[in-house]
Amino acid sequence: MKGIEILPLTGVPEIRPGDDLAGLISRSTRHWLRAGDILVVTHKIISKAEGRIVDLDTVEPSALAKRFAAEHGKDPRQIEVVLRESRRIVRMDRGVIISETHHGFVCANAGVDASNVPGTESVCLLPVDPDASARRLRERISELTNFDLPVIVSDSFGRAWRFGITDVAVGVAGMASLADYRGGKDPHGNSLEASVLAVADELAAAAELVMGKTDGVPVAIIRGYDYERVAGSGKDLLMPPERDMFR
Amino acid sequence: MKGIEILPLTGVPEIRPGDDLAGLISRSTRHWLRAGDILVVTHKIISKAEGRIVDLDTVEPSALAKRFAAEHGKDPRQIEVVLRESRRIVRMDRGVIISETHHGFVCANAGVDASNVPGTESVCLLPVDPDASARRLRERISELTNFDLPVIVSDSFGRAWRFGITDVAVGVAGMASLADYRGGKDPHGNSLEASVLAVADELAAAAELVMGKTDGVPVAIIRGYDYERVAGSGKDLLMPPERDMFR
Repeated sequence: MKGIEILPLTGVPEIRPGDDLAGLISRSTRHWLRAGDILVVTHKIISKAEGRIVDLDTVEPSALAKRFAAEHGKDPRQIEVVLRESRRIVRMDRGVIISETHHGFVCANAGVDASNVPGTESVCLLPVDPDASARRLRERISELTNFDLPVIVSDSFGRAWRFGITDVAVGVAGMASLADYRGGKDPHGNSLEASVLAVADELAAAAELVMGKTDGVPVAIIRGYDYERVAGSGKDLLMPPERDMFR
Repeated sequence: MKGIEILPLTGVPEIRPGDDLAGLISRSTRHWLRAGDILVVTHKIISKAEGRIVDLDTVEPSALAKRFAAEHGKDPRQIEVVLRESRRIVRMDRGVIISETHHGFVCANAGVDASNVPGTESVCLLPVDPDASARRLRERISELTNFDLPVIVSDSFGRAWRFGITDVAVGVAGMASLADYRGGKDPHGNSLEASVLAVADELAAAAELVMGKTDGVPVAIIRGYDYERVAGSGKDLLMPPERDMFR
């Protein structure tokens, strides 16, 4: 029975700005990596290695940030960082900000996150370009291990209408983010119209199952999934604005 | 390295109304099931076994269904079925209907699906009560195999803001749908405020990776995931209306 395995990478130390993430992952995995494996890396350790951490003491909140924070018992400096990371506010209500980030992701708090950041006075941002982060990691790991592995950078997003967060792919390198069955037929000869599968999001969600929130597992290896070999991009997972009914 | 395995169940025949799904799954899996396994079953075969198939020739479309179908080149009878399966229309635009089903799911076309249904003149509905379907399957499989396995009933849903569909859990029995880390602390002592994980949705998404759309794999077994043993319900994955910012 050919299935898929999802393997956690444990023992990754706390990552600091400038750390060599590719070297660290390569050293930890090289004895058991296999051709065909996919690497899923939580954005948090990439953001940390890339120095995407903001010391809240350096942030001067705007009047809007101060007002919203006061109304909802939030830290005005953290709200200010969320506003700066946004290019469009979708909802700003009940203490929650749903916005579109400069990358085009629609998510809560523009991906700004205070959990798993050392010290309560700093927050972690999304990488500037998660696809580029995925590409760099993939290229360097390929040099170090001789394995040409796709890399997915993941983050936890909320969803409209559904409770709870799930991990999605914010950056992708070395594989197709989507599996497009449009134009195909099912075994009964019916067209598969609505069948573009967001497989990179499903792989990120699967990886989360071995990561957990508190266990210090920032990397998972997915083995046995037959991906499509292309350059890839997390941007393929964004709803084109002209088709977006929930802007 | 303790990971998770996702195993496809192949060789499941075309399911017809009245078929004994629990017997069929039990016979196909009993030689390799293990304690702790989770069964993910696509709703399609459950709907078929439960007779949730509508012959479009029996459907008289309403004026609204006729008008919308004519505007967007759709089958008015299929639109009529979608309207009947809906209790609230969220968006009805560009040939797409996003509605809330009688169960409370917000999804495209109220879960009405023409793919993988024999004959082009019939469509498949969601089970009347996917939690009850999951419970019945779980109880009967437990009787037949002596394995007390959680059952997740899955369907493919689109998402606001993100392109492509992913599988989610519409029915759950025997495990918690959510992993709630609220009130917990990360390794740095920061509160994990936003950390309720929709693990049943992540398990459904992981299962889809071995199911594909056309391969005739309607069941997956997930091995090695440490779930929380409770009665469980897919309704836990619905955003409570008072917290829903996208009604």
